[in-house]
Amino acid sequence: MHEAGVGVTLFYIAVVLLAARLSSLVERFGQPAVIGEMLIGVVLGNLALAGLPFFEPIKQSGVITFLADLGVVILLFQVGLESNIRDMRKVGMSAFLVACVGVVLPMVFVTYVIGPLLLPDLSANAHLFLGAILTATSIGITARVFRDLGVLQMREAQIVLGAAVIDDVLGLIILAVVSAIVTVGTVSAGDVLRIVGTALAFLVSAVVIGQVFAGLLGRMFARVNTGQGMKLTMALSICLISAYLAELVGLAPIVGAFAAGLVLDSVHFHPFARPRFVQDVQATTARIEPQAKAAVDEILDRYTDRHIEDLIEPLGAVMAPIFFVLTGMNVALSSLLDPTFLLTALGITVVALISKIAAGFVAGNVNKWVVGWGMVPRGEVGLIFAATGLGLGVIDQRIFSMIVIVIMLTTLLTPPILAVVVRRGERRGMAVEAASAKA
Amino acid sequence: MHEAGVGVTLFYIAVVLLAARLSSLVERFGQPAVIGEMLIGVVLGNLALAGLPFFEPIKQSGVITFLADLGVVILLFQVGLESNIRDMRKVGMSAFLVACVGVVLPMVFVTYVIGPLLLPDLSANAHLFLGAILTATSIGITARVFRDLGVLQMREAQIVLGAAVIDDVLGLIILAVVSAIVTVGTVSAGDVLRIVGTALAFLVSAVVIGQVFAGLLGRMFARVNTGQGMKLTMALSICLISAYLAELVGLAPIVGAFAAGLVLDSVHFHPFARPRFVQDVQATTARIEPQAKAAVDEILDRYTDRHIEDLIEPLGAVMAPIFFVLTGMNVALSSLLDPTFLLTALGITVVALISKIAAGFVAGNVNKWVVGWGMVPRGEVGLIFAATGLGLGVIDQRIFSMIVIVIMLTTLLTPPILAVVVRRGERRGMAVEAASAKA
Repeated sequence: MHEAGVGVTLFYIAVVLLAARLSSLVERFGQPAVIGEMLIGVVLGNLALAGLPFFEPIKQSGVITFLADLGVVILLFQVGLESNIRDMRKVGMSAFLVACVGVVLPMVFVTYVIGPLLLPDLSANAHLFLGAILTATSIGITARVFRDLGVLQMREAQIVLGAAVIDDVLGLIILAVVSAIVTVGTVSAGDVLRIVGTALAFLVSAVVIGQVFAGLLGRMFARVNTGQGMKLTMALSICLISAYLAELVGLAPIVGAFAAGLVLDSVHFHPFARPRFVQDVQATTARIEPQAKAAVDEILDRYTDRHIEDLIEPLGAVMAPIFFVLTGMNVALSSLLDPTFLLTALGITVVALISKIAAGFVAGNVNKWVVGWGMVPRGEVGLIFAATGLGLGVIDQRIFSMIVIVIMLTTLLTPPILAVVVRRGERRGMAVEAASAKA
Repeated sequence: MHEAGVGVTLFYIAVVLLAARLSSLVERFGQPAVIGEMLIGVVLGNLALAGLPFFEPIKQSGVITFLADLGVVILLFQVGLESNIRDMRKVGMSAFLVACVGVVLPMVFVTYVIGPLLLPDLSANAHLFLGAILTATSIGITARVFRDLGVLQMREAQIVLGAAVIDDVLGLIILAVVSAIVTVGTVSAGDVLRIVGTALAFLVSAVVIGQVFAGLLGRMFARVNTGQGMKLTMALSICLISAYLAELVGLAPIVGAFAAGLVLDSVHFHPFARPRFVQDVQATTARIEPQAKAAVDEILDRYTDRHIEDLIEPLGAVMAPIFFVLTGMNVALSSLLDPTFLLTALGITVVALISKIAAGFVAGNVNKWVVGWGMVPRGEVGLIFAATGLGLGVIDQRIFSMIVIVIMLTTLLTPPILAVVVRRGERRGMAVEAASAKA
């Protein structure tokens, strides 16, 4: 039940939440809120350098780390809810091309060029691992930036989200294959096929089975109770179970959460009662003039239809910032003081940037810079790869720290630049659309 | 960041949430939802007896235990938000009397009568500890039952909540004193005064300082950002920090959460923007006939004013059931197979029931059965006491299990009986009020 010291964890959670909210001041400077959350995380996480180690226990807390993971799971679920399978299908081919190029380029460049050049004393296997680590785009960071800017429905955003899911799958396949090469020295074609097969089977069956079962579950749960709590629990449980199933087949849990959001549609929640408040307003406006009533009803319909997003919103608003503040906190500024370390990290970062921006150029008739920069941030998947390499002994603690710095740099650089690129693109929107209509 | 196995925990959370929701079927039989949550917890937690140990890891999960604690903290915060300092003050004297009698009776009865009678081979110190354990009412269970029944504003409910806070404070003082007696053999009057002083100082300053600071904080935070996320984060952070401060001065975190809810008032959130949806409806109804518009505006005002409760609601709806399901899961049905153990536990339970019901009879001119039964459930505080006794070596593992059974029995028996007593009281409400008007 209640254990001594639970209060301290509650306090740390409050610190993270308040820091995250206060950091939304960056929005005044046109930056997405996520960059503020990561920056204040960097500050909180490095206060020990200034002799103020008050917040160090936050990094070690298993509970807060879990809450951060849960936060990014809920965020990806929200992004999935706001995305749409039909829209995703339209960008399928572009997303697939962007994903493939964005996986092959950093893999080849880092393994065969920049790795041997900047880190000549490492083994060929270490270079291979370094390349693999930099393949997977962090869907969390990019999705959050697009969301903060209110452009999730934009074609470019849909391509990036699709490509990020695909290169997450490709990346996890590469990780499995590279791990096999490093440990066993070789890998059979059968193993590769099995890994690829499971991943694809999960995603396809999530979408196909989900479409059928979500409606069935909705009717079943609504039979027990049509309240708002039931509606929220049903949606959230489908998200959590899908995240678990993704992990079971070897994918990142966030991929499962995204798939769950993609599958759930407002139609699955129609058997539930409308919120009490909507019922109240409807009862009151029943007597007013028909035209005004129609206008109010339209808002109410829109509100009820997207009410599952609204129910999840407070949970997401509380949980997701924990992940981004904690990500910032894990950047050790002290390691930046070693110039060789710093230069090597910067060199790898430049390659990591260029190889993904280049991938944007195969995206077809869209704003290629938005797609390219959208693919830049590496995140949780890259960190899982790095942790796996550390566990296998292919890379050491120093290289691990360097990878964390590279991942953080790609992540910190992206939001402000992506915000600028998106806004510039929006201003030129008319011109681009006119040109594309001509072509 | 992301650790392997996080998906399994997500899955277990989904299991607990779904079980809790499905258990709301008990509402069809007129029972409060909380009893369903605890019963399904007992089933899930004892499936291992039937050879199905799938859910055993849930009990061991540090993360889920923390989420349960967080759930009960958020629940008490909600109860505090729905309570009102002025109403609490009106019942202050009755609450104080009920609390004192409800602490003295079980303490004396168990220590000097039933303890030596049923457990003669235990030491006098163990009997003393057993008595202390049964003093504190679990505000969580009772608050939840009153809330499920929609009678939180009832005078009896306010007396019970007030008395539960007071006997929590009294109980923690007794624990500190009894622990000192057991370990040192004696305790100074200065120590007792210090413990009492800190506890009282916390509660008084929480209410007084809170009244001033909450308004100030509201204006400060609203200056950074007037959005709904900020509003929720501010409210939640005040709750978490207050829970932490309560723990710091030696009280249960839930007491701090309740105090925070009591202090926060809708007025502190007026500097924040109204929800987008309210703004939309207002813009649309601006043109309709004045009388209808006034009616809609009234609903919108009511909605906006209690909007902080509505923002917290989804969080509470998800989190609080985790505590109650987990409480049920920790009941080991297997120990009930030993008849001596069972009879002793039942004997202590009867004393635990009678001594608190008797306390209801000093509540003054209200429904004494509602107050008395409202005081019956012991919960998290009793369990902390028991764990402390186990740590000090005053009681052994067997007595600890017995205490857990007693606490669970008081907790499982209360919701259905309280529901009956409250409903019977409501039917007789007119008669009682008429009689009290005459007196």
